[in-house]
Amino acid sequence: MSRPFPPLRDELRGIEPYGAPQMSHEQAPVQLNVNENPYAPSDALAASLATAISTVAADLNRYPDREFVALREELAGYLNTSGGSGITPRMVWAANGSNEVMQQLLQAFGGPGRTALSFAPTYSMYPEYARNTLTEWTVGHREEDFGLDLERARALIEDVRPALVLLPSPNNPTGTALPPEAVSMLCEAVGDGGLLVVDEAYGEFRRSGTPSALELLPHHRNLVVTRTMSKAFALAGARLGYLAADPAICDALRIVRLPYHLSATTQATASVALSYVDELLAHVDDLRVERDATVTWLRGQGLDVADSDANFVLFGRFADRHAVWQGLVDRGVLIRETGPDGWLRVSIGTADEMAAFRSALTETMTQTQQAEQTQQMEESR
Amino acid sequence: MSRPFPPLRDELRGIEPYGAPQMSHEQAPVQLNVNENPYAPSDALAASLATAISTVAADLNRYPDREFVALREELAGYLNTSGGSGITPRMVWAANGSNEVMQQLLQAFGGPGRTALSFAPTYSMYPEYARNTLTEWTVGHREEDFGLDLERARALIEDVRPALVLLPSPNNPTGTALPPEAVSMLCEAVGDGGLLVVDEAYGEFRRSGTPSALELLPHHRNLVVTRTMSKAFALAGARLGYLAADPAICDALRIVRLPYHLSATTQATASVALSYVDELLAHVDDLRVERDATVTWLRGQGLDVADSDANFVLFGRFADRHAVWQGLVDRGVLIRETGPDGWLRVSIGTADEMAAFRSALTETMTQTQQAEQTQQMEESR
Repeated sequence: MSRPFPPLRDELRGIEPYGAPQMSHEQAPVQLNVNENPYAPSDALAASLATAISTVAADLNRYPDREFVALREELAGYLNTSGGSGITPRMVWAANGSNEVMQQLLQAFGGPGRTALSFAPTYSMYPEYARNTLTEWTVGHREEDFGLDLERARALIEDVRPALVLLPSPNNPTGTALPPEAVSMLCEAVGDGGLLVVDEAYGEFRRSGTPSALELLPHHRNLVVTRTMSKAFALAGARLGYLAADPAICDALRIVRLPYHLSATTQATASVALSYVDELLAHVDDLRVERDATVTWLRGQGLDVADSDANFVLFGRFADRHAVWQGLVDRGVLIRETGPDGWLRVSIGTADEMAAFRSALTETMTQTQQAEQTQQMEESR
Repeated sequence: MSRPFPPLRDELRGIEPYGAPQMSHEQAPVQLNVNENPYAPSDALAASLATAISTVAADLNRYPDREFVALREELAGYLNTSGGSGITPRMVWAANGSNEVMQQLLQAFGGPGRTALSFAPTYSMYPEYARNTLTEWTVGHREEDFGLDLERARALIEDVRPALVLLPSPNNPTGTALPPEAVSMLCEAVGDGGLLVVDEAYGEFRRSGTPSALELLPHHRNLVVTRTMSKAFALAGARLGYLAADPAICDALRIVRLPYHLSATTQATASVALSYVDELLAHVDDLRVERDATVTWLRGQGLDVADSDANFVLFGRFADRHAVWQGLVDRGVLIRETGPDGWLRVSIGTADEMAAFRSALTETMTQTQQAEQTQQMEESR
C-alpha cells in the first residue's frame, strides 16, 4: 500500500529527464553538440527586437492573439519562398518549439490505441513525445546508408497502420534527406487514416537539388511538414516551431493547444526574425559550405561520413567513440556522442570553430593510434 | 471504413476549441471579460524589458537554460514575500502559463486509470486539461455560498481516491477563497497517493486576513500551490505560470516537460517584471479597493454578489442573464456570461472602466424592468 512519494505514474518512475550533456564555455569553448546556429543575431536584429518588444510591452497586460494571425501570415509567406507554393495562413500552425508542435499532433491524432512509427536511427525525442501522449511507439530500421528501403517501409506501414509516421528530413542524427518519391509513396501507404509528418527542422540546410517536402503538400492532404526557427533562423533561445498542412489539420490542433500558448513576446520575436530572413539565410549558406568542407575533410582522414543535408555531420566509425569524444573535450571541443555505436555527430560552427574541431580530432586520432600501437607492441612482447 | 479526414481521435471530434468570446476595442471599448489586469506595464518597465531583451538577443542562437535557474531563484524569493516562507528554488517550477503547469502535473501524476477531481462551479478549463492528458474527470459540488462542505468533500475524496484535486483559491468564477483548515484537511484526505493543487492564479488579490496556501507547504508534502504572472503582474501576454511544491514534485515534472520549454525571452521578461514587484503590487492594491467598492455597489442595487478574493466579481441573479450581458455590450462594456445560470462575472478594471460598467448596468437594468412592466401591462390587458 505504501507507494513511493511523489505518486508519479508508474511508467515514468526512474526515468532521467531528457538533456544533452551540457558544459560551460570555460570547460568547452567550442560547442558543437546541439546543432545550434553559431551566428548570434546581428546588432541590427537585436535592436529591432528591442523596439518590437517595447511596442508589445504596452499591451502585455492583455492576453496575446490566441490565433497568432499576423505570424501565421508571415510564416506562410516565408514558406512560399522556401520550397512551398500556395501555402496560406490557414495551412500554418505554430507552437513553443517544434517539440510542442509534435506533442500537439500526437495529442490530436495519436494517443491510446494508436501508433506512431519512425525509422531508426532517428531523433531520440520522438519516443518521449509518444510516451507523454500515451501513443504506442514502433520503430522500423534504416539501411546501411541511413536511407529507407521503400518497399520494406511500405510493408511495415501496411502492417502497423500507424496514426502518425514521423520522418525527419534531413534525418537527425544522420543528416539524410528523403527523396520526394519516398514522401509520396509513404503518404499513399499511410492513407487517410493517418498522417505522414516530415520533420524539416534542418530543411533550410539541404544541398541544392534536394527538394523540400513542402512541394508535395498540394498532392497529399495527409502530409504535414514541420519546421523550426531554432536552426536556420538562429533562434533556439526563442522557441518557435511551426508546420504547414491541410487547414483541417491546423484547425484540429486548436482543440488540444493550450489557450494562448504563444506569448506576445514569442510572436513578436519570430516576426522580427522573419523580417531579417535574407541576412539569416546568408549565414545558412555559409554553414552549408562549411558543412560540405567538413564532410570532404573527414573523408580525407579515411573516416566514414554520412551524406549530410543538415547543419551537422555524422562520422565514424570508432572502436571506442567515447575515447574520441573525450579527446575532443580535453581539447575544448564539445561534440555529441549519438547515433549508432561507433559514430559521432558534430554540429557545423563557424570557420574558426571547425578549424578547432579539425585540429582537435587530428590530435585525438594520432594519440589514439599511438596508444593502439603501444598496446599492440606490449601485447606482442 | 471511410473515416472522416483528418483522422482526429474520436473523443475530440466536433469539439469547439476553447475561447472566451472576443470583441474588438471598437465593438466594446471597456473589456472586463477575461480577468486581465487593466494596468499596462509602465514606461519604465517597458524600457527595462527592451534592455533585457537586447541583452538576451546576443545569445538567442543558443538554447535557453533548460532549468531556468535564475528565474526559479527569483520566483522563490518573491513567493517568500507573498505568503510563503522557506521556499527554495528547488521548490519552484514554471511553464508557459499556469495552464502548461497544470498540463504537466496531469501528465506526470494523472493519466489513464487516474482521476482528477474538482468542485463545481469552477474553472472551465480543468476538464479540458484532464481530457488532453487522458485523466478521468470527476466533479463534486460547492454549496450555495460557493464554499465547500468539508465533510462532504472529504467523503468524496475517500470515495474517488483522486490522483489530483484541483482547487482554485480564490475560485474562478466565484471569487471564493479556501480557508487554510480546508486545505489542510483535504491534503490529509488525499494522502500520499495524490496531490492537492491549490490554484492561486488570483492569490495576490485576496482580502487582508485571507491567508495563502503557501503557508501550509511545510506541513503537507502533497500540496502544490500554483500561481501566474498573468494577473497580479499584469503579464497575460508573456505567459508565465509557476508553482511551489516539494522538490521531488518539481523534479518529476522535468521528465514530462518538453526540453527547453521556457524561452530565453520568456525567462527574461518574467525576471524584469519581478524586479518591478512594488509598482505592480501597488496596482493590485488599487484593484482590491475597486473590487470591494464594486461588491458594495452591486449589493446596493439589490443584487446577489459572491464574496470575492479575486480581481473579478460574480453577481446575479438574472432571469435572463444573456439579455443583461447584451445590454452591457450594447453600451460598450464586455463582461463574461459564465458561472451558474443567472449569474454574470465582471473583471475589475480601472476606476473609469468600473464607472462605465456601473452606468451601463444601471441603464440595462432600468430598461429590463421597463420591458417587464410593459409585458405585464400587456398581459393584464
